[in-house]
Amino acid sequence: MPSETCECCHIAEPGVVSQTVDLLSSEQHNMLAERNRGDVLDIGHSAFVYRQDRDMQDDVDALVALLDLEVIEVNVFRGVSPDENRQRIFGGQVAGQALVAAARTVEPDRFVHSLHAYFLRPGDPTVPVLYEVDRIRDGRSFTTRRVVAIQHGRAIFNLQASFQIVEPGLEFADSMPDVVPADSLPTRAERYRAQGIPDPFAGIGRPVDIRYVTASPFHRTEPLPPVQQVWFRADGSLPDDQVLHTCLLTYASDMTLLDTTLLPHGTNSEVGDIQLASLDHAMWFHGEFRADEWLLYDQYTPASTGARGLAVGRVFTHDGRLIANVVQEGLIRQISRRRTTERPGG
Amino acid sequence: MPSETCECCHIAEPGVVSQTVDLLSSEQHNMLAERNRGDVLDIGHSAFVYRQDRDMQDDVDALVALLDLEVIEVNVFRGVSPDENRQRIFGGQVAGQALVAAARTVEPDRFVHSLHAYFLRPGDPTVPVLYEVDRIRDGRSFTTRRVVAIQHGRAIFNLQASFQIVEPGLEFADSMPDVVPADSLPTRAERYRAQGIPDPFAGIGRPVDIRYVTASPFHRTEPLPPVQQVWFRADGSLPDDQVLHTCLLTYASDMTLLDTTLLPHGTNSEVGDIQLASLDHAMWFHGEFRADEWLLYDQYTPASTGARGLAVGRVFTHDGRLIANVVQEGLIRQISRRRTTERPGG
Repeated sequence: MPSETCECCHIAEPGVVSQTVDLLSSEQHNMLAERNRGDVLDIGHSAFVYRQDRDMQDDVDALVALLDLEVIEVNVFRGVSPDENRQRIFGGQVAGQALVAAARTVEPDRFVHSLHAYFLRPGDPTVPVLYEVDRIRDGRSFTTRRVVAIQHGRAIFNLQASFQIVEPGLEFADSMPDVVPADSLPTRAERYRAQGIPDPFAGIGRPVDIRYVTASPFHRTEPLPPVQQVWFRADGSLPDDQVLHTCLLTYASDMTLLDTTLLPHGTNSEVGDIQLASLDHAMWFHGEFRADEWLLYDQYTPASTGARGLAVGRVFTHDGRLIANVVQEGLIRQISRRRTTERPGG
Repeated sequence: MPSETCECCHIAEPGVVSQTVDLLSSEQHNMLAERNRGDVLDIGHSAFVYRQDRDMQDDVDALVALLDLEVIEVNVFRGVSPDENRQRIFGGQVAGQALVAAARTVEPDRFVHSLHAYFLRPGDPTVPVLYEVDRIRDGRSFTTRRVVAIQHGRAIFNLQASFQIVEPGLEFADSMPDVVPADSLPTRAERYRAQGIPDPFAGIGRPVDIRYVTASPFHRTEPLPPVQQVWFRADGSLPDDQVLHTCLLTYASDMTLLDTTLLPHGTNSEVGDIQLASLDHAMWFHGEFRADEWLLYDQYTPASTGARGLAVGRVFTHDGRLIANVVQEGLIRQISRRRTTERPGG
């Protein structure tokens, strides 16, 4: 049931009007209105109204549908973006779709064990993305694929991924850090409510539930240790398809990692004086897992320099198995110092 | 001056006969003879003789020459391998040459800040390698290149690299671990001599001087903590060309990293029951450095499973500046368990 409540002026659980707040400048108002435009039902005075009846399983199902690409030819696939009126496609979506495209060209006895990608240009969410797969190698044990994502005749993203048959081998893994369980931590809606400000993502499909173990972005008002830990999972059930779980992990692994690079600097992406964009993304997978069960994302930043920040992450199952390592470098350009009006990755 | 001494039966500094040892089986003898064949001058009884007059600066100059590719066309380059009679090309050489090829197509005001590569097939050292560059993106601040290395009509290696103009930005970096200085640690020749066995690399060009801070491979007889630290530098002077220093770092970063994955398992690549081969290689660069000055390579393995091992490394200058992060996954296949006779990366 759509709510008629202005989300900027009232904080509400889906469909429920609660506490009134008055914290937003007209600029913030407009920014939120722009972000949420796809879900705006009506706009009056200085407020806007959007749907509050989004069901979390719907968001997960919508993401699963996004990852089910259209086949154009043997090595060519096409994906679409959600109807959310974002300014650009979320990088994790392109990475997830590209991995689906690669996996569709690989024998089913082989599983992805690593991927390396560059974000080249901002994705345009108003038109489909074409994924062209190059079968660069079919070996006896390993298969390697290159995928170029294309829009408007230009590459927006380039991925390489390697797949392997199941092999036995030496076993070793990092231990999981000792952290509080996910269920004891606040949801995104609860975090925003506790801060007394509206959730700018409330009207946008957010298929991943993220719980901050370390300081949430709201509490980052001064330089912090370079470590960020979050629990996350698909906010609903996923089908039993390891490729899908891996693609969802790929999607989710792009959500918080780059924020880690700002921890030592006493700023965060909510503040707005930093242009933040993923430049690359690399992952290594170490075993099976379900992305609809809690995963601990233990993130760390070793370096920032040259308007770039590097972040590394380890992903553990809730029972302590290391199932992935992630590295991402991002643009962290101070807007006051930026040289051009170029978009991220520019 | 060539030595007439059998290196298998005598351990000598270049040109100097010293301590006599008799530790090698005929099998080891033959293996060493095979490895060093390119430098064999004479073979008698059960021994062989090879040049002992190799000058370290010659090896460095030879590597610099290897990195100076022949231009075939605007985006096509050709590189050769040293005349060492290796069975396959050293991966770091292909990575370094591919990075040179990419850099040759990029404006000189842009510097490489990251690269991601896959090793696809063993390189054949008896024929040249063709490097084809795809100028996938020329942006205002960032330039991205893809390079495919080709031999016998097939891709042996695929690299992506990103270059950026010089930009100011937020500054943060990991601190260097407190380790003993490089000059207090034994050279490779001294390590072999101390063990009383011949240096299997003595006749092969080794342009990089590596000093083990943590246990050297000889001392890895039982499971060890998953950390390996080495100092390294070009074993001679390099010209003042940051591209060349970066390519030499790329070359050297492939030399010890994968060994790190074996530390927890009480085995090492000298033992011979593990098939060890680089699968991928990723690097992020954080500032200028000289590769002919000591660099600390702080390496660590977070995981091994599925006949693969993952290793990560941080590179610091001798005065403590973090200048690179490295990640590599490799095949670590137990030979007794391997499914096929396929070569590494197979």
